[in-house]
Amino acid sequence: MTTCWVPGAADTPYGVQTLPYGAFRRSEGEQRLGVRIGDFVLDLRGAEDADLILAGGALSESTLNAFLTLGRAQWTTVRRRIVELLTEAEHRAAIEPLLIPLAEVDLVMPFTVGDYVDFYSSEQHASNVGQIFRPGQPLLTPNWRHLPIGYHGRAGTVVVSGTPIVRPSGQRRSSDGPVFGPSGRLDIEAEVGFVVGVPTVLGDRVPTDRFADHVFGVTLVNDWSARDIQAWEYQPLGPFLGKSFATSVSPWVVPLEALDHAWVPAPAQDPPVLDYLREDDRRGLDLSIVVEWNGTRVSEPPFAGMYWTPAQQLAHLTVNGASLRTGDLYASGTVSGARRDQVGSFLELTWGGTEPIKLDDGSERTFLEDGDTVTITATAPGPAGSTVGLGDVTGTVHPAR
Amino acid sequence: MTTCWVPGAADTPYGVQTLPYGAFRRSEGEQRLGVRIGDFVLDLRGAEDADLILAGGALSESTLNAFLTLGRAQWTTVRRRIVELLTEAEHRAAIEPLLIPLAEVDLVMPFTVGDYVDFYSSEQHASNVGQIFRPGQPLLTPNWRHLPIGYHGRAGTVVVSGTPIVRPSGQRRSSDGPVFGPSGRLDIEAEVGFVVGVPTVLGDRVPTDRFADHVFGVTLVNDWSARDIQAWEYQPLGPFLGKSFATSVSPWVVPLEALDHAWVPAPAQDPPVLDYLREDDRRGLDLSIVVEWNGTRVSEPPFAGMYWTPAQQLAHLTVNGASLRTGDLYASGTVSGARRDQVGSFLELTWGGTEPIKLDDGSERTFLEDGDTVTITATAPGPAGSTVGLGDVTGTVHPAR
Repeated sequence: MTTCWVPGAADTPYGVQTLPYGAFRRSEGEQRLGVRIGDFVLDLRGAEDADLILAGGALSESTLNAFLTLGRAQWTTVRRRIVELLTEAEHRAAIEPLLIPLAEVDLVMPFTVGDYVDFYSSEQHASNVGQIFRPGQPLLTPNWRHLPIGYHGRAGTVVVSGTPIVRPSGQRRSSDGPVFGPSGRLDIEAEVGFVVGVPTVLGDRVPTDRFADHVFGVTLVNDWSARDIQAWEYQPLGPFLGKSFATSVSPWVVPLEALDHAWVPAPAQDPPVLDYLREDDRRGLDLSIVVEWNGTRVSEPPFAGMYWTPAQQLAHLTVNGASLRTGDLYASGTVSGARRDQVGSFLELTWGGTEPIKLDDGSERTFLEDGDTVTITATAPGPAGSTVGLGDVTGTVHPAR
Repeated sequence: MTTCWVPGAADTPYGVQTLPYGAFRRSEGEQRLGVRIGDFVLDLRGAEDADLILAGGALSESTLNAFLTLGRAQWTTVRRRIVELLTEAEHRAAIEPLLIPLAEVDLVMPFTVGDYVDFYSSEQHASNVGQIFRPGQPLLTPNWRHLPIGYHGRAGTVVVSGTPIVRPSGQRRSSDGPVFGPSGRLDIEAEVGFVVGVPTVLGDRVPTDRFADHVFGVTLVNDWSARDIQAWEYQPLGPFLGKSFATSVSPWVVPLEALDHAWVPAPAQDPPVLDYLREDDRRGLDLSIVVEWNGTRVSEPPFAGMYWTPAQQLAHLTVNGASLRTGDLYASGTVSGARRDQVGSFLELTWGGTEPIKLDDGSERTFLEDGDTVTITATAPGPAGSTVGLGDVTGTVHPAR
């Protein structure tokens, strides 16, 4: 890989090894698509207008959806072209005017979400939640090792990183029956989201080995959760208002090509899975996630250990013939490792709120307080010892209305 | 109400008391919006092009979404104008060329679905399912009388009436552990859907008395369900693949105005509900639903008896600040009355498949067989003794692929 001429970009997690896609707005300006390079965003509409990139107009739209439908061959062609533009000196004069400092733009939601599905694929997380929510019962439900459990979330409340998170109100249990009020157990879920590009028609399935034909890339997800609302409502049909008030995603979608060096063997599965979930080459992504609570690094969930892989999740999601739409988002479920400082939720970090943790400023926390900010970041191994940055997803809690 | 001049339309369930909106295509033609009158569809784009209706172009789109955003005042104005056009003799010459026989069009999905939420608001249905799925446990979960239980379904697989329903495959329990194959317990759920017109912003709530400011109208829903897949997967996060393969809706959205005469007092609630679910005037819709299985009328679920009203469902759905989008669809949940011939699912009709029923052709059924057709229709009381038709939602089961 040749060196990137963009000032300050080489040898950072946002060099040409990464090139995530997003959407941005300059003050008063229209929404445009861009690619992050170092601390700049490359204006893709500008590049397409100047015939520097040929994508049939898809990069001149206000969201990524048209580009996402194009498929792997075109995604790869466009990515290679962007690498050329940012590494070959001859393009510098044409491209430089199209580089806008990140500090001058607002990053906005980069794609229109079709359906949003949330899985539950970390064995450690499911075991922890089982212990906390259903004490005395088996850690995992009987189906857990046979299928990647998932459910549909609310697509209309998937919001871009930075969107204020208003503390939700709702019903929760009390000793006198249910009461209404602001959630007292507001939590996060650190997850990895997969963005579907190429759709399918009703009745089709996506086998595990066709994952990369349909999934464009990856985005970080914080699936905000109100544990008290969830605990009261979720039987028998699953989480609803405890989750539907907001799900934050990173402004950047990192294309799968940027993660070529991040695949590692996924954990062995026992018992063996049914045929449609079998993979010749079981692979997980070696993403290192970091969760910061008001600036204090409280957890480092390891994504590589997820029991169910993204390819299995997609195969399961479609095995009944459910169709995919461009912009469908499916998330891994909370990423939790074996150690307490590797869990992806505060429910686990403080063991159901019974074991407060101390932040760097000396204050203690169980669940989120008004004004708290949570930032989730992640990196992955890139080519030639480089690091791929996955951006961050951040949100600040505002008081209930 | 003056008499409709359209041949054969007066004194039918599709006279000017109804006027449901849909979308249609003539062979090779583009998709257009229309209003049903008798056995015709009025071409709304044609009417707008000829300045016979003024809706700012919203009725010249290919889906209802632009019109749905306009709000109650405009919806009412347009409806009144359509009544004028179809009853006043002076408009006949201009309108007649815009009336297309229903037999000459294909009806297509009339709106783009935002999020699809399915409630669970019939006490009789929830009790029956509790008895069948969780024998020996209380009929209703402890939360059932305190909140309208609901969950998100898959918006991308909401399909228009008539779309073939391919039998889904998936995992189900067996004595030797889970096995994979076509569902052996394919079922229906007869439901009533509410279509959201006017959106809200994140953080806003829709109180029970603002229901009609946001909801445009009603459509019939068949939430096809694979009971064996559902039974194995649904703990702890709710139904997923057992439902996500297809949800059929009527091609017609009946505006709330057409149902002005159909409101009846809703059942009293005990225990009293929390404030945000309280209604000064608890109203349900007196819709008479009919379920036909291969032409045999097997059930007549009464919608008026639903425990939770559509206004309560919407208030609950948004009480945590979840925003609404135009095109959001929320369904009532299976409509079941007290008697066996009033239930809205075959799970209940055949009591978990243990009590087969006989169709008019002499054949017996427990769950759906390949080739079976289910049609759900409904009517409501209209003004001056008239009947309002809600169209029908139909589907035929095709073999698993």
